[in-house]
Amino acid sequence: MASSAAAVLDAPPPALAAQAAILARPATEERRMADAVRALAIDAVEGARSGHPGMPMGMADAATVLFTRFLKYDAADPRWPDRDRFVLSAGHGSMLLYALLHLTGHAGMGIEELRRFRQLHSPCAGHPEYGEHPAIETTTGPLGQGLATAVGMALAERMLAARFGRSLVDHRTWVIASDGDLMEGISHEAISLAGHLKLNKLTVLFDDNAISIDGSTELAVSDDQLRRFAASGWAVRRVDGHDHAEVAAALSWAVRNRKPTLIACRTIIGFGAPTKAGTAATHGSPLGAEEAAAAKRALGWQHPPFVVPEDLRARWEAAGRRGAGARRSWLKRLARHPQRDEFERALAGRLPEGWHEPLAALRARQAEEKPKLATRVASQRTLEALVPAVPELVGGSADLTGSVGTLAKGMAPVAPGSYAGRYVHWGVREHGMAAAMNGMALHGGLIPYGGTFLVFSDYMRPAIRLAALMRQRVIHVLTHDSIGLGEDGPTHQPVEHLASLRAMPNLFVFRPADAIETAECWELALRRADGPSVLALTRQNVPAVRGEAGENRCARGGYVLAEASGARRATLIATGSEVHLALAARESLEAAGIPTAVVSLPCWEIFAAQDAGYRDQVLGDALRVGVEAAVGLGWERWIGPGGVFIGMTGFGASAPAEDLFRHFGITAEAVVAAVKRRLNV
Amino acid sequence: MASSAAAVLDAPPPALAAQAAILARPATEERRMADAVRALAIDAVEGARSGHPGMPMGMADAATVLFTRFLKYDAADPRWPDRDRFVLSAGHGSMLLYALLHLTGHAGMGIEELRRFRQLHSPCAGHPEYGEHPAIETTTGPLGQGLATAVGMALAERMLAARFGRSLVDHRTWVIASDGDLMEGISHEAISLAGHLKLNKLTVLFDDNAISIDGSTELAVSDDQLRRFAASGWAVRRVDGHDHAEVAAALSWAVRNRKPTLIACRTIIGFGAPTKAGTAATHGSPLGAEEAAAAKRALGWQHPPFVVPEDLRARWEAAGRRGAGARRSWLKRLARHPQRDEFERALAGRLPEGWHEPLAALRARQAEEKPKLATRVASQRTLEALVPAVPELVGGSADLTGSVGTLAKGMAPVAPGSYAGRYVHWGVREHGMAAAMNGMALHGGLIPYGGTFLVFSDYMRPAIRLAALMRQRVIHVLTHDSIGLGEDGPTHQPVEHLASLRAMPNLFVFRPADAIETAECWELALRRADGPSVLALTRQNVPAVRGEAGENRCARGGYVLAEASGARRATLIATGSEVHLALAARESLEAAGIPTAVVSLPCWEIFAAQDAGYRDQVLGDALRVGVEAAVGLGWERWIGPGGVFIGMTGFGASAPAEDLFRHFGITAEAVVAAVKRRLNV
Repeated sequence: MASSAAAVLDAPPPALAAQAAILARPATEERRMADAVRALAIDAVEGARSGHPGMPMGMADAATVLFTRFLKYDAADPRWPDRDRFVLSAGHGSMLLYALLHLTGHAGMGIEELRRFRQLHSPCAGHPEYGEHPAIETTTGPLGQGLATAVGMALAERMLAARFGRSLVDHRTWVIASDGDLMEGISHEAISLAGHLKLNKLTVLFDDNAISIDGSTELAVSDDQLRRFAASGWAVRRVDGHDHAEVAAALSWAVRNRKPTLIACRTIIGFGAPTKAGTAATHGSPLGAEEAAAAKRALGWQHPPFVVPEDLRARWEAAGRRGAGARRSWLKRLARHPQRDEFERALAGRLPEGWHEPLAALRARQAEEKPKLATRVASQRTLEALVPAVPELVGGSADLTGSVGTLAKGMAPVAPGSYAGRYVHWGVREHGMAAAMNGMALHGGLIPYGGTFLVFSDYMRPAIRLAALMRQRVIHVLTHDSIGLGEDGPTHQPVEHLASLRAMPNLFVFRPADAIETAECWELALRRADGPSVLALTRQNVPAVRGEAGENRCARGGYVLAEASGARRATLIATGSEVHLALAARESLEAAGIPTAVVSLPCWEIFAAQDAGYRDQVLGDALRVGVEAAVGLGWERWIGPGGVFIGMTGFGASAPAEDLFRHFGITAEAVVAAVKRRLNV
Repeated sequence: MASSAAAVLDAPPPALAAQAAILARPATEERRMADAVRALAIDAVEGARSGHPGMPMGMADAATVLFTRFLKYDAADPRWPDRDRFVLSAGHGSMLLYALLHLTGHAGMGIEELRRFRQLHSPCAGHPEYGEHPAIETTTGPLGQGLATAVGMALAERMLAARFGRSLVDHRTWVIASDGDLMEGISHEAISLAGHLKLNKLTVLFDDNAISIDGSTELAVSDDQLRRFAASGWAVRRVDGHDHAEVAAALSWAVRNRKPTLIACRTIIGFGAPTKAGTAATHGSPLGAEEAAAAKRALGWQHPPFVVPEDLRARWEAAGRRGAGARRSWLKRLARHPQRDEFERALAGRLPEGWHEPLAALRARQAEEKPKLATRVASQRTLEALVPAVPELVGGSADLTGSVGTLAKGMAPVAPGSYAGRYVHWGVREHGMAAAMNGMALHGGLIPYGGTFLVFSDYMRPAIRLAALMRQRVIHVLTHDSIGLGEDGPTHQPVEHLASLRAMPNLFVFRPADAIETAECWELALRRADGPSVLALTRQNVPAVRGEAGENRCARGGYVLAEASGARRATLIATGSEVHLALAARESLEAAGIPTAVVSLPCWEIFAAQDAGYRDQVLGDALRVGVEAAVGLGWERWIGPGGVFIGMTGFGASAPAEDLFRHFGITAEAVVAAVKRRLNV
C-alpha cells in the first residue's frame, strides 16, 4: 500500500504516518518485549552487515503475542514431541526466530550466537537451517516451502493423534508467511490441500506489509488473499498486526475454529525505522548505523547493542517456560500410556522389530518365481510386504495411484476430518506433496513415501532439495522412468532426470533392474534414516535378472551381476530396465568369444562410497560400456574416457516403447555392435 | 461430483442420468459436429490402444462452439500472426486438438495422421508437441504449463499491440484447462498474474468434470474455483458444457469482458460412453471395443471408424475457413503499414541490423578498462547496450530486479492496462515467469529474458524443460551462482544446479568469467534462435580475466585463456568466478617451474559440439584440473579419470563469501597444492 515513491511530497508517506500514530500510544510491557526482538534484529543485521531487518521489525508484535500467550512449548526441551510447531516460512526474517529463541531462554542460542549471525559455524544462519538448533523446526528461505511443509506437519499431527490419541498428540502448527510465500505456486497447493483436509489446527499469520523486494506489491500482485484462502476452505480474518489485543483475539478465534485459519496481519515493514519503515529499503539490507540508531530512539529503546534489560529478559524467559507444566503432565501421561513403547519407537525413527522379515520372504519367493514385472509393480508388491510391517509408513500419490502402485491393500485414505488412514490422495500437487512429506518426516513419527512420474520430479525439486539438505527420510516413488513409458511422449519421458537428481547432494537415487532389486532398494531407502531417496521405476515389464536373494546386493550400490567366462574384455554397466539388455548383449558377446561381465549399478551414491578396491574390482579394467536410457552426463565417472555410452542424447518421442528403444538405438544389438567396433572384432 | 463408487446400487450414477437427459434432446447439427470429434477421439485411442478419450468426449461440445463460432483462425495459414491462440492445457486430451485440426481442414493433419496417433513420426503425438504441426501452438501435457504459457501469449499480444497497433495485433488467447491444471501450483502464479495485469483477452474454459485419475476430485480437492479466480481479478461464470447455446453465450460474454475470464464448463467425462461416462475409467485408457461401439450407438453415430460423413465434413471445413476474410484484410493492412518491415522482422525472429555494434563497443571499452565487476553487474551493463538496440528484447525478474540486474535504463514497466513498457515485474513467481516467457517466445515478436537466483531454477525447471523441448529463444539470467553469494546460506547457494541444467538437452548453460565473457555469452544467447539459454552469474565481484575483445572467444564454448610457458604439465579448466582462481594458481605454478595453461569453459554444450581436434588441443594431454564451485558431476568428461576436481561435494553454508571459499577449499592455493601433489613435486 504505502510505497514511498507514491507519497505526496512534504507529507509523510502513509506508512510513516501510521507508524507515528502507533508509536504515540503508551508502550505496554508487551510492546517493549516486542521492541527487544526488533532491537536484536537490528543489531544482528548491522553486525553481519547483511540480512533482512524489515520483516522481524514488522512482525515482532504478532510474534510476541504468539510466543508469549499461544504457542505451546517449553524452552527447556525444544524437542518435546507434543509441542506446537512454529514455521517461519518467510525465512529471510530469520532474526525474528533467533531473537525469539534467544529471549525465551533456549540453550545454544545465547547472545554470542546472535552476535555471530550469518557467520561460519553459527547456528544463526542467514536463513533458518534445520539441524543448526533443535528449536528450528525446518529449513526455510525458498519461498512457499515453509507453508507447504507446515501443512505436512499439521497433517502428521492429525494422523498421529488418530493413532495414539489426543492424550499424547494434541498440538497446533503456526506459520508466519510473507507476500512472497503467497505468490509462489506451491502456496496454492498447500492452501488447497489444508482446506480440503480441514486441518483446523493450522494457522497462518500473513505478514501483510504490502512490500516486496522490487517495491510495493502493487507492482506485481493484486490478489485478494482473504477471498483466495476462503475459496479453499479456510477461515480468514484481518487484523492490525501492531495491535496486540487484536492479534490475541484473532489467535483465540483461530484456536477455536473448525477450519485452517488465515490471519492477515497488516504490518509496517521495518516498523520503527523513522524514514525507511514501510519501504523495500528495509527488506534485504541493514538499516545503516544512522537509521538503526534513529529507529531505536523512535521505539524508546535506550540500550546498547545486544543488551536487553533484566525486567524484559525475565518476562521473556517466563514466557519460554509457560509450557513447562503442560510438558510435565504430558510426560506423566506418556509414562502410563499403553502405546508408550510404540510411540517412542516411531518418534525416534527406529523401525519395528522384524520389519524386514516379510521383505526377505518376498525376495526369496521372487528368486524362485523370477517374475517378469514392471519395477513399479514390483514396488507395489514390496509395499504389500512392508506396509503391514511398518505402521509408521504412510503413502500417497499425486493423482497417479494406479499408475505408480503406491496403494497397498488395507491402506485407508486420509480424508477431510478423518485421519486414521495411511494413504493420502495428494491430488495433482507434486510440489505440495513433496513439501508436505518433508513436514511429516520433520514432525516425526511417520515415514512418508509418495509417488508420481519421474519426469515430474522437476515439479518437486525445490522440496526434494530441502529434504536432502535437512537429511529427512522421505521416499519418492518415481515411475515411468524412461522412454520405456512409450506413447505419452517426450513431455512425459525423463531423459535428464536421473543425472539431475544424482547431482543433488545427500539424495540417493535407486534404479533397480527387477523385482528383487526393487525390494532391495526399498529396504535400503527405508533403512536410510538420514536422507531422502528416489526409486526410479519402469512402466514396462522387465525380466528378472536375479535368481538369488540371500544377500542384499544393492547394498553396495553396484555389483557384478554376471562375471565374464574368462579374462574380461568388456564390462557392461547398466541400471534399471537396461540391465537385461546388457545381459542379452553379454550372451551374444560371450557366444562370439568375447568374455564380458555385466555390472548392475542401481545406486551411484552408495557405490561411490565403497572403497576404491571394491569399485575397481567391480568395474574392471576391460572396455567399459555404460547402458542407460537417459543422457550420459556423469557416466564418464564409471566408463572413463575410453568408454562407450549407449543411451539418449536428446528428448524422446511418442511411440510404443519397443519402437522407441529401437529408434534411439538402445538395444542389446547396439551394445554388441559397439563393443565389437571398439574391440575391433 | 459423480463418482461411480458413490452411486446407489440399481440407480444410474448421476453422470449417466445427466448424460441420458442430454442425449434425449434432439441432436442439432452442431451436436453432430461435436460427435465427429468424439468419434475420432474414440477411434484414434482405440487404434493406438493407448490415450485419453474421456476429455475429448467431455469437451467436444464446448470446443466445437469455440472452433466454429469464436476462435479467429484460417486453416489455410495456421501461422497467420494475428490468429487467436488456442492452448490445450489439458494436453492429455490431445485427440481433441487433432480431431479439431483435422476436421477444420488443416493440411498435414489428414485421416492417415489420426490413424497413426501415438506412433513414431506421427504429428499426433501422445501429447501435443510444438513443431509437429504448425497449428500446435505449444507443447502441453505437464499440467499447468499450458495455462501459464497462455498467459505469456496473451501478454505478448498486448505488448505487441502497444507497439504496432491494433490494426496488426488484435487477437485473443483461449485455453482449455482441467482440474489437474488448476491443482498445480503454477496455475496460481498464472492466474494471479493474468488477473493483476488485466489480460482481458484471455479466456480459460475449465473442463469441470469432477474426475481425476484417482477417481472423483472429491478425493483430493474442494476449492471453489470460481471464487478463487475471482479473488485474483478474473470474471467468472459457470455453464453446462454440453449446452451449446449456454457455452456460446458465455464466450460472447468473455469477449466483451474487461477482465480475464474463466468459464467453468460442467461436463461429463467420456460423454457418450454408456457405462463409463462420468468415471475415471475414461480418463487415461481406451474405452475398449465394446464400450466404444456402444458409445457411438448412444450418440447416434453410425459411421465406420475414422469416417466422417460429407455433410459434417463440409460444415467443419467451412468453419475452418471462417477467418479467411479477416486474414485477407489483415494482409492488406500489413502491406500498407508503416511498421511493416519491422513487424515482419520481429515476428521472424531476425535481430535488427547492427544490433551487436553497441555490444562490440562495450566489449572494446571493457578490454581497456578491465573492470572488476560481479558478472551480474556486467550482465546489466550488457543489457544497457542491448536493450536500445534490440526493441523486441523484453525483460523482467521474479521480484529480484536490483539483485539480478535485469532492468536497463529506459525500460518502462508493464502495468495493468498499460503494455507499452518492456519490463515485467513478475512477482515472486519464478515458475509462472518461465512459462510465460515460453508463451511470449512462442507467440513471436518478442525475445524474453527474466531473472532470478540460480538456485531457484529448481522452481522453473518444468518450464525451462519445455523451452528446451520446443527450442524457444528464452534467456534466463540466473545470478548468485555459487557459495560466492555468501551469507544467505545453503538454501540460496546452488551447488548441483549447473550440473542439473547441463543435463537438460538443448539448453545452453553459460557461466562467464568476467565482464567481457558476460557480453560474449549474452551475444551467443541472443543469436541462438533455436533454444533457451541460461546465464549463470556471480553475486560477488570478479577481476577481469580478459584484456582483448576482438573475437568472441566464448563462441567455441571453451578456449585457452592463458597458455603454459612451456610444454604443459597441467591444464586448469575453470568456469565463471573460478577462472581467476585458476589464473592465480597458474601464476604460482609457473613460478614454481610448472608450465600450466588455463582454459575457460563458459559453455559446455558449445564446446562439446566443436570438433575433437579443437577440444583436444584446448584441453591438452597434461594433468587436467577442473575448478568450479559446484558439484563435480559431469566434470569427468573434461578432466578424465586421472584428473582432479576442485569444487563442492555437498551443500554450502552461511558465511561471508571469502570464508566459504576458504572453508570449502576452493582457492588458488588448493589448486596449486593439488597439482603439486599429483605431479609429485
